[in-house]
Amino acid sequence: MRKAESINFNEFVFGDGFWKSRQEINEKATAKAVYDRFSETGRFAALACRWKEGEPNKLHEYWDSDVAKWIEGISYILSRSRDAELEKIIDDMVEQIEKNALPCGYFNSFYITLAPEERFTNRNNHELYCLGHFIEAGIAYKNATGKDKLLTLMQKYVDYVEKVFVKEKSAKFFTPGHQEIELALVKLYRETGDKKYLNLASHFIEERGRHNESLNLPEFPDIEFQSHKPVREQTEAVGHCVRALYMYSAMADLASEFSDKELFDVCKNLFHDITEKKMYITGGVGSDRYGERFTHAYDLPNDVAYTETCASIAMMYFAKRMSELEIDSKYADIIERVMYNGMLSGVSLDGEKFFYTNPLETDPRLLTRYDIYDEAPTYQPIQQRVKVFDCSCCPPNILRHIASIEQYFYSFSDDTVFMNQFAEGELNHEDVKIVSRTDYPRSGEMTFSVSGDIKYLAIRIPGWCDEYIIDRPYKKRNGYAYIENPQGDINVSFEMTPFFVKAHPNVTENGGRVALQRGPIVYCGEAEIGTNLKSMRIVDDNFEEVFDETIGALTLKGTLECESVKSDAPLYSKYSADEDTKEVEFIPYYSFANRGEQEMLVWFNI
Amino acid sequence: MRKAESINFNEFVFGDGFWKSRQEINEKATAKAVYDRFSETGRFAALACRWKEGEPNKLHEYWDSDVAKWIEGISYILSRSRDAELEKIIDDMVEQIEKNALPCGYFNSFYITLAPEERFTNRNNHELYCLGHFIEAGIAYKNATGKDKLLTLMQKYVDYVEKVFVKEKSAKFFTPGHQEIELALVKLYRETGDKKYLNLASHFIEERGRHNESLNLPEFPDIEFQSHKPVREQTEAVGHCVRALYMYSAMADLASEFSDKELFDVCKNLFHDITEKKMYITGGVGSDRYGERFTHAYDLPNDVAYTETCASIAMMYFAKRMSELEIDSKYADIIERVMYNGMLSGVSLDGEKFFYTNPLETDPRLLTRYDIYDEAPTYQPIQQRVKVFDCSCCPPNILRHIASIEQYFYSFSDDTVFMNQFAEGELNHEDVKIVSRTDYPRSGEMTFSVSGDIKYLAIRIPGWCDEYIIDRPYKKRNGYAYIENPQGDINVSFEMTPFFVKAHPNVTENGGRVALQRGPIVYCGEAEIGTNLKSMRIVDDNFEEVFDETIGALTLKGTLECESVKSDAPLYSKYSADEDTKEVEFIPYYSFANRGEQEMLVWFNI
Repeated sequence: MRKAESINFNEFVFGDGFWKSRQEINEKATAKAVYDRFSETGRFAALACRWKEGEPNKLHEYWDSDVAKWIEGISYILSRSRDAELEKIIDDMVEQIEKNALPCGYFNSFYITLAPEERFTNRNNHELYCLGHFIEAGIAYKNATGKDKLLTLMQKYVDYVEKVFVKEKSAKFFTPGHQEIELALVKLYRETGDKKYLNLASHFIEERGRHNESLNLPEFPDIEFQSHKPVREQTEAVGHCVRALYMYSAMADLASEFSDKELFDVCKNLFHDITEKKMYITGGVGSDRYGERFTHAYDLPNDVAYTETCASIAMMYFAKRMSELEIDSKYADIIERVMYNGMLSGVSLDGEKFFYTNPLETDPRLLTRYDIYDEAPTYQPIQQRVKVFDCSCCPPNILRHIASIEQYFYSFSDDTVFMNQFAEGELNHEDVKIVSRTDYPRSGEMTFSVSGDIKYLAIRIPGWCDEYIIDRPYKKRNGYAYIENPQGDINVSFEMTPFFVKAHPNVTENGGRVALQRGPIVYCGEAEIGTNLKSMRIVDDNFEEVFDETIGALTLKGTLECESVKSDAPLYSKYSADEDTKEVEFIPYYSFANRGEQEMLVWFNI
Repeated sequence: MRKAESINFNEFVFGDGFWKSRQEINEKATAKAVYDRFSETGRFAALACRWKEGEPNKLHEYWDSDVAKWIEGISYILSRSRDAELEKIIDDMVEQIEKNALPCGYFNSFYITLAPEERFTNRNNHELYCLGHFIEAGIAYKNATGKDKLLTLMQKYVDYVEKVFVKEKSAKFFTPGHQEIELALVKLYRETGDKKYLNLASHFIEERGRHNESLNLPEFPDIEFQSHKPVREQTEAVGHCVRALYMYSAMADLASEFSDKELFDVCKNLFHDITEKKMYITGGVGSDRYGERFTHAYDLPNDVAYTETCASIAMMYFAKRMSELEIDSKYADIIERVMYNGMLSGVSLDGEKFFYTNPLETDPRLLTRYDIYDEAPTYQPIQQRVKVFDCSCCPPNILRHIASIEQYFYSFSDDTVFMNQFAEGELNHEDVKIVSRTDYPRSGEMTFSVSGDIKYLAIRIPGWCDEYIIDRPYKKRNGYAYIENPQGDINVSFEMTPFFVKAHPNVTENGGRVALQRGPIVYCGEAEIGTNLKSMRIVDDNFEEVFDETIGALTLKGTLECESVKSDAPLYSKYSADEDTKEVEFIPYYSFANRGEQEMLVWFNI
């Protein structure tokens, strides 16, 4: 039942432009920044399994996943250009893993170092999650370098997991507290062709919600882990967003591999529930930091938005898998919404600092609400990116994700190549070659040179784009413009005038407010503290486009109405219309907080 | 330096109208409701000091204050009409206190029952706060009935306090954790003429912030108790609002008694800081439930507004005292803002249910955000009034406050009678008599018949009132219209057309929003859940006034623009102006939540 298959990331090579530039920063700055922070905090050293009580950098049970994601990200970089020094670092790590893995294949630096006999006793302790990431790292490293030791070690470990969880059922729980291994096992199946991996993935998905494996803690109800009922009975996205979206991704994979229409329908419902009721305009998900989770429909507070960077990445995984199961541009629309906004905001322009959460509204003044207390009792969202987190899942996730983001740009069916995203570059997939020339998303003008044996080129017409020109005959179907016999040059133009977006009226948080968008990019106002962006009002759609070299993107300057702030103005007075105006600079949301502490706002009064 | 003196509450007797009706409910329903709840929870029985571990209704150290406030409230009612049954109840309580007080005079049912040797060891344990309330109760009961046993017992207790805190300095702390005794001691001085009480009040005020008496708990920094510096150095209202305002009230009292210009200036600064930077439009104060406290300037979130009912009452205390020190209508303006809004919202229309906190925005849907967790981790404000609280300070505070609210209506200087608030009724103060005929605040029409030896009648022109007619010559000074030789009939008319109020632009929470007010009454929209009041927009000032029998006040019906809610509407779409309209009923804010769970909003998009 699979309708299309995404390309491998290395089948498309970016030319100069938005993503090439982001990939260079990712390769040069992010890869090193993550490596340095992980070295300093002992994450790599942990693999040696020699840590002793009293030493600094006590291990965490999820550290291996951080290491694995770093290896995976570096592997994608190596696949473009081998690097002996980097490979030596990774080879040494793999050697440590080999040396310290238990004879049965089990490896987790935390448990092996601190309590090997307690392995697989605590559902929430991320062992299978770490294994999943090691599998992905092993596949990526093998494909980049041909070196398969890490993958082989992990295959042995997977055999042990199958023994413990399926054959012997000797673990203290049935399914992982943090999903991830399921989608990794499908990847492993696709890599090896061995169905046992697919069946193990299916086992973990299908057993979920069928056992009493509650943690019985008030903050960890079953629903937090998507274990409140069997997955096929789940109709609403609930609980921890990253766990949920990794699981939904694996479910879509399984629906694809087993041609499982029922499971696909479950995924469709969940996708709809998220994207039409629980997603921020930035593509971020997770309305509450408590449980890092989905809350109820239309509950999308801006200032305390959780919207973890990893959840945005996971949302792209899910959408990509759905796009392969159903030809509908809405999936690539969502990917575009996430990739240019809530995912990219997770990393600074210089690539060295990161957001774990990505609020849609910041006012540093609010942080002073709690400055008299030793412990801030109420959640105050982070306002500036930082170099490292205790729980540092997001930085290496950004690394591996941007290093392989080409996979989202094209997909193929038997007779059609789907152009899902747009960038300058060259696609080579079997005998099909497409050379694209465009400055997207700064410009909506594109030229494609197509050659090879393909019947249709299906160009996604973005959901935000009402006006476009294609200089070939086409038929629009499922959101794509299908061009028959697309060989030769094709010119496409998307209208890129900035526009305002409103939210569903049930999102009362955004009542009377609009967001400004240009192409796929959601803009935010950023201004010095005290500007009171939230009190200002948009009165026309007249915005001046200015290219900002630092941001590397267009900014939009507009004149907004506001109240002039007089120091002696009364706290309350009879209403009169705003009497002043002020110029406000709107910048791409992803680029906020790159120039110190400022006010930031996405949703403006209109 | 005192410029005017407020009347005793029993010098003004309400005629039919707003406040007589509220007083009747207070007398009939609230007095009994509080009595019943306090009986059920063991607060009265606690005075017997016989509770044993294992029994229900374990004592709390602040219970005596609840009892005292109930006695005080009943005393005001008795002063209008004696009642043998009620007096028997109180006399029995006083007998218990007499019987169980320590020989030194100390009485606190909690400590005497559970740990008499630990008296005065914990600054936060409300002993002096309870004593303060007992002093106020003793004065009120004596004045109502002539029975002085309670007052005499408390005078003995005060002597013991003076010995412990001033002479011996043997307590484990220097000043009370919860201020209240200071203003009670000034009352006691005024009642008895004995300066030792005034000096003790002054001692507690002046010693504050001069000792190391921190509780050293993260949630109790010195600033929470206004102990971070000596009171004369305090320039900003900080910390727990009720504690702060009881203290500021006592400071104003002391400034008055000692003609202390410096202390008065401190009070003026604090009053300005509160009313121009930290007060809700309802007159409520306290922006954060953590510490029940003032936060920073202009930080006035509506949905999580704390605005404790007791803080509103305390704000009226402070404003009244300031109005006696400086002739300026702004003080009575603030009293009016509080009394018709944030104070009165603390009790249901039937007088039997209470708000401790008084949010300015409720949407019961938000409460479901945490319904999957055993413990709601984030503050979700109460949406409906309840019959009793564990910490039930507000209900008896409402009782005593409404029972004596006449004291806010008039004040006197040597040659002037100040009419600060407006109601049908009869004032008799020495030989001055004023009979007022008005349906205020439903109507702005008033007739006063003045007789007696007074040179000026100074009628407050409310800050909200731009147009008014007075059928006598007058001079406006300090916000009052001064009528010379006011004897005879005077007609006054205040324009009562509803109007919109805006907040200072630094209150970003209210940016682009207005509140609707008519006369002193702040209105709120109340509508069934799902109406999405926050997404609606006020587009004109055309409101139909309808008298609502249940509320006993005018409601204002207006037509607002809104988005029509379609079940399949997309989460995000291109902006278009609202396409639908809906009628919304605005009711007095104080009357919200009297007809089940609804959405409620004060600040509307315009």
